Amino acid sequence: MNKINRVAIVGGTHGNEFTGAYLIQKFAQFPDLITRPSFETVTLLANPQAFAATRRYLDKDLNRCFLRQDLQNLTLNSYEELQAKSLQNSLASNGDKQADFILDLHSTTANMGLTIILVNTNPFNLKLAAYLSEINPLVKVYCCNFKSIAENPFVNSLCELGFAIEVGPIAQGILKATLFQQTEKLIHGILDYLEQFNQGKIPPTKETLTVYQHLFVVDYPKKQDGTIFGMIHPQLQDKDYQALNPGDRMFLTFDNQTIVYQSESTAWPVFINEAAYYEKGIAMALTEKQQFKI
Amino acid sequence: MNKINRVAIVGGTHGNEFTGAYLIQKFAQFPDLITRPSFETVTLLANPQAFAATRRYLDKDLNRCFLRQDLQNLTLNSYEELQAKSLQNSLASNGDKQADFILDLHSTTANMGLTIILVNTNPFNLKLAAYLSEINPLVKVYCCNFKSIAENPFVNSLCELGFAIEVGPIAQGILKATLFQQTEKLIHGILDYLEQFNQGKIPPTKETLTVYQHLFVVDYPKKQDGTIFGMIHPQLQDKDYQALNPGDRMFLTFDNQTIVYQSESTAWPVFINEAAYYEKGIAMALTEKQQFKI
Repeated sequence: MNKINRVAIVGGTHGNEFTGAYLIQKFAQFPDLITRPSFETVTLLANPQAFAATRRYLDKDLNRCFLRQDLQNLTLNSYEELQAKSLQNSLASNGDKQADFILDLHSTTANMGLTIILVNTNPFNLKLAAYLSEINPLVKVYCCNFKSIAENPFVNSLCELGFAIEVGPIAQGILKATLFQQTEKLIHGILDYLEQFNQGKIPPTKETLTVYQHLFVVDYPKKQDGTIFGMIHPQLQDKDYQALNPGDRMFLTFDNQTIVYQSESTAWPVFINEAAYYEKGIAMALTEKQQFKI
Repeated sequence: MNKINRVAIVGGTHGNEFTGAYLIQKFAQFPDLITRPSFETVTLLANPQAFAATRRYLDKDLNRCFLRQDLQNLTLNSYEELQAKSLQNSLASNGDKQADFILDLHSTTANMGLTIILVNTNPFNLKLAAYLSEINPLVKVYCCNFKSIAENPFVNSLCELGFAIEVGPIAQGILKATLFQQTEKLIHGILDYLEQFNQGKIPPTKETLTVYQHLFVVDYPKKQDGTIFGMIHPQLQDKDYQALNPGDRMFLTFDNQTIVYQSESTAWPVFINEAAYYEKGIAMALTEKQQFKI
């Protein structure tokens, strides 16, 4: 790739994640903020009906609708499945309107600061992530690789370059001004980097990048009937990206029993107590802290 | 009233307020926790379908369905309107199953600690509120009086004694262990007080109680088309129950203009940035800090 011609900023993929949805509205009203000389920037409110209803989704989680086979399956026609096909048309069609870089804006109830979620290890994405984490210590890099792009159900499967940003902690359905401003600043940093890339002036970074590599997810303590019977332990709440060692407290059950982390090795949890993941059976995701050569 | 015979603890009136809903489930599993010698304690999950859907409500906010005229109107038959009539039957019928004290458990994304929401100034409620605020400094008392009980749309209109408790900050759809434990401890304090009352041993309190008396609500900055154009100012976020003086910063608009509080007098805001109130056009409620003689 020689030049980035078109950048897409996507917000409201989940309708109750207001930070991204309202940043999109702000950028639509003040397009100069996201205009750069060498490329076009477009904005997209990805799930307008869910945003209007202040819900994550109406029928199906939109950010799980982008498996290649599902996009090709014409019998899948719920609101979000159709919306995914429409986004694919807008962002990944073969014409000159194809996006060369997609930024998908999310928020979380977990204490994840400004997280970059990589879905591949394309060197360009790694260099950009390294640059952003160097200019802002709140930036962390979480990587969930897929075996192939066909198995990636996220918006970011539509384009090799780009990633999601996941900011928190913030409740669903609200705006928090500090996080709104930090997210906007991060977006400006990304657009400025892309502009410099197009001008052949990539800012230098260190040669290694700390990446939290996804391992597996952990569910809440549950009774035999499947209902939740415990909570994130107070000692673990808000400790995203901090080392969880064998024997550390993970959960507190409703009858006040502590459940500890049973393992041979340290892990680094993320998405601790994310509201939208209760229904998915996810209390947190565990990662391994790695140093990537870039 | 000579004796309290039946206490009702209601949770999940709003289906995405997990603290109360899961406390109800805990109490149902461990009834000894809420058993006291001199009265019966019953628990109620008020909006089971909204809880199953992790939504505040399906059709209509249940905690706005208890206007006397609405309860008597047989043509109102949405899910929550029928649920309200059912709760009235369970809790306020004239038989011996009538609740003498109703505690309704809520949570909020605002930083309201452990708030008691009084809907009347019955001396019994005031004394209990004074007792609770003396044994726990996190307890605050917010009072929204109604001209008559017929105009009170809340669950707590069903019974003269009792109140709602509103705990936060917590995102919708999650459990936070510390707040769960604090709420449970508050409930135990209430039940213990009621037991002592029945035994003729009301714990003494000071003669005055600090009450935050509801004045009026304030909406977000909006454009002419009704869409939000600003956020709670970072200086005001999480400052519930703190004095807001004329000239203090209230909102930050998307184009970075600060809107200050324009008034002649100090107010004390509550429900700052409550997620469920965006759709109601409420950014916060302003109160007046008063000392009640009790």
